[in-house]
Amino acid sequence: MKNWIIFLLTAVVVFGLGMLASSIINRKAEAQFAYQPNIDISENEPRNEVWGDYFPRQYQSFLKTADTTFKSLYGSSGHIDMLEENPRMVVLWAGYGFSKGYNQPKGHEHAIDDLRNIMRTGAPTGPGTGPMPNTCWTCKSPDVPRLMNEQGIAEFYKGKWADKGSEVVNPIGCADCHDSKTMSLRISRPALVEGFEAMGEDINEASHQEMRSLVCAQCHVEYYFDKNRPGAEGVPYLTFPWAEGTSVEEVERYYDNLNFKDWTHAISKAPMLKAQHPGYEIFKTSVHYKRGVSCADCHMPYKTEGGQKFTDHHIQSPLANTANACQVCHREETDALVSDVYERQSKIKEQLETLEEFLVRAHVEAGKCWELGATEEQMKDILQDIRHAQWRWDYAAASHGTPFHSPVEASRIISSGLKIVQEGRLKLSRLLYEFGVKEELPYPAINNKHEAQVYIGLDPAKMKADKEEFKKNIIPQWVKEAEAREAKMPTGSKK
Amino acid sequence: MKNWIIFLLTAVVVFGLGMLASSIINRKAEAQFAYQPNIDISENEPRNEVWGDYFPRQYQSFLKTADTTFKSLYGSSGHIDMLEENPRMVVLWAGYGFSKGYNQPKGHEHAIDDLRNIMRTGAPTGPGTGPMPNTCWTCKSPDVPRLMNEQGIAEFYKGKWADKGSEVVNPIGCADCHDSKTMSLRISRPALVEGFEAMGEDINEASHQEMRSLVCAQCHVEYYFDKNRPGAEGVPYLTFPWAEGTSVEEVERYYDNLNFKDWTHAISKAPMLKAQHPGYEIFKTSVHYKRGVSCADCHMPYKTEGGQKFTDHHIQSPLANTANACQVCHREETDALVSDVYERQSKIKEQLETLEEFLVRAHVEAGKCWELGATEEQMKDILQDIRHAQWRWDYAAASHGTPFHSPVEASRIISSGLKIVQEGRLKLSRLLYEFGVKEELPYPAINNKHEAQVYIGLDPAKMKADKEEFKKNIIPQWVKEAEAREAKMPTGSKK
Repeated sequence: MKNWIIFLLTAVVVFGLGMLASSIINRKAEAQFAYQPNIDISENEPRNEVWGDYFPRQYQSFLKTADTTFKSLYGSSGHIDMLEENPRMVVLWAGYGFSKGYNQPKGHEHAIDDLRNIMRTGAPTGPGTGPMPNTCWTCKSPDVPRLMNEQGIAEFYKGKWADKGSEVVNPIGCADCHDSKTMSLRISRPALVEGFEAMGEDINEASHQEMRSLVCAQCHVEYYFDKNRPGAEGVPYLTFPWAEGTSVEEVERYYDNLNFKDWTHAISKAPMLKAQHPGYEIFKTSVHYKRGVSCADCHMPYKTEGGQKFTDHHIQSPLANTANACQVCHREETDALVSDVYERQSKIKEQLETLEEFLVRAHVEAGKCWELGATEEQMKDILQDIRHAQWRWDYAAASHGTPFHSPVEASRIISSGLKIVQEGRLKLSRLLYEFGVKEELPYPAINNKHEAQVYIGLDPAKMKADKEEFKKNIIPQWVKEAEAREAKMPTGSKK
Repeated sequence: MKNWIIFLLTAVVVFGLGMLASSIINRKAEAQFAYQPNIDISENEPRNEVWGDYFPRQYQSFLKTADTTFKSLYGSSGHIDMLEENPRMVVLWAGYGFSKGYNQPKGHEHAIDDLRNIMRTGAPTGPGTGPMPNTCWTCKSPDVPRLMNEQGIAEFYKGKWADKGSEVVNPIGCADCHDSKTMSLRISRPALVEGFEAMGEDINEASHQEMRSLVCAQCHVEYYFDKNRPGAEGVPYLTFPWAEGTSVEEVERYYDNLNFKDWTHAISKAPMLKAQHPGYEIFKTSVHYKRGVSCADCHMPYKTEGGQKFTDHHIQSPLANTANACQVCHREETDALVSDVYERQSKIKEQLETLEEFLVRAHVEAGKCWELGATEEQMKDILQDIRHAQWRWDYAAASHGTPFHSPVEASRIISSGLKIVQEGRLKLSRLLYEFGVKEELPYPAINNKHEAQVYIGLDPAKMKADKEEFKKNIIPQWVKEAEAREAKMPTGSKK
């Protein structure tokens, strides 16, 4: 009898142990391969590797955004210095940070190191120094929603870029687009929510498919820093200028009505607007958008691995991934698809370059007028023409992918810029004639970035030396402080 | 025995009669519905109705090209007077026939009556009179290959348009594109064959699918009248300017190298080029062309009737026939497809209108310079700029369907025109200032066709009265002579 009971109890225990072992194994398998309902990630967790423990395929594909080889008309490296490629830009942005540094975009994994290393963030020597406001961090890191939650939105936007160098350290990642509990797509940046409100729309009504573009639209849009926001006066509050609409003309009207300018041009003294990257606004005018295609459909198409279907988080040019991105709908060879895109790009580039040359000339001609004693009254309309024409150029040039996303809208915008710059330069030619300048002024010698930067009064050697100091002294300090701070953070039960 | 033999013979005879009856019925059916090997159409048969006896479906669908309702951005009637719609064109073409009359295109069935009635063919009073050469008939009728066969090519091109008014009477039709024996597609116009030769290509190597575009390219191309062709000196010999290539720049270079001009502008005195309708050249830059689509695939898509599949000869805008033309490849609702096309059209139109306005101003400004005593030397570069800028406008505007066929190429061409017109107008502004004109000249009052025609020195009332005389006296005479001549022609055994 006793032996029989022992045998039975042993069997029960062994069975129980087996069930437990199986349960543990299954759980580990679930964590590796599928949605895991027992996720324990804190709401403010900015570290992508913590999320990656639960979603290894998404995380590991995301890490590939560190890759800086990609396909573009300019070549296949993400290190391309656009000011070297196109020194006209230095003159167009004279007096503004972009004239110091502007590169071909790299992947999201580089968001933090790129911003630290780019010349236009300057060389802060400590908190409260440097040229850029803290608002410039807004799009760079999941530390931003963390800090906004901890400090409040307006409080986050306050201060200098260098002030939060040790706080914003994780590159763009999981928390920027996902809810930490449900993993559903979420809008983490208030500016987009407020932009929708300004248009009289409610972003909460967006469908899942719309969200697959809207999470991108948190950053890939035109924006400005509003220092007159009620309740946050004086704070450079990140704002999308969408109250009148999102077309190039509507946004221009919005800025004109506010009498807003991003900067005063160093040569022409025109009250300039810098278009940031109105990629989402331009995409909304495209045939792909009309057909219900989202950003993610082409830039993060579904892929399979080990029999699992998941969204490829290696966000990249669809040209580097035509099989999943394009050929799902377009039954054409890769070479044909890529050459179609390049053809659009090169035809739009030809138009952009014409407008750039005329804008450079307009700035130089306006500078000459000032030099010869022109009055504010004489220059007023001319400067407005320069402002509007360059705004259109920048709107088309700065929004990545425009020549593919919406080539006809791109050309329409550029042509409208060509119209306005012609009107401005005709006024300039008459004013210059009045001052005795009877021939076209020579085009400035700006054959490379260095020549162009010297031409607009920058000191490239000093900028570089200062930046090296910053990289040597300040960045390591930021990294060290961040490491100490993060060591004390909860990591979730899986870490 | 005897009865048995009679029965057998009767059976054989009845069987034979049955076979004969069936054969006759079948033959009749074949003639109605399918390719008929016993076609008897003479090589030079210009009358579409004679061909129509053998190919009723093709012929009857072709007759529908008489329909003048169609879909376009400008409305749904083929009677639209483009000069009324856009009086800028009157000024741009001042001194040239197009300033007298230019309409939205109608169907092929109207080819003859349209050319007779349009103001730009003037009001001939008999052979040897009127403004247009006989070459203008070349694209209008299957009487042309007949006459070329009968008289020789150069002989056909000789003389005035009015000289052959009684000879060219059948509108564009069967013989223009088909061989009368095999019905295979054929090139009936020597200019296309010669154009291919000029490019170093042999049109005889074209595939059937290529021929489905090339028969259209016999006419829907840019051309000029070469009066220096060896062996045909002095004859306005129809020539395609393709020796350097078919892009807008290559054709411009071809004309510049020849020092060729279509006319001297009445206001600016610029040596102008008139782009005709480089539809085929522009289509060659399109994505549809790259994908192997032919003109006929969209403008004459296959249809079925009574179980028979045939090519719809109701040549028309695909927008009026999206089910067969577009939806075979594009799975979208008609409204979505049409609105996509209209959007491209309206965005390209916006760009064209900007260029038009600047060109009008350039002509007016150049006219003012002449008036104030400018020299040939002072005007030379300016006039070349006007020539090149307007060439680009016309190349994009005159080639029907460009904003749809190849919108990015269209915008590239227009932007290059905007570039050149800016350079010209800057020179004009300095020259005008030298003459004491310190402000922009007012834009001319050209709010409608009449105002614009009076502005350029035309007499619309006289043009109209003369045309009425021509229509009353000359056309009926042409028709009568043609009827008498055709009554003596062989019609083929089926007529």
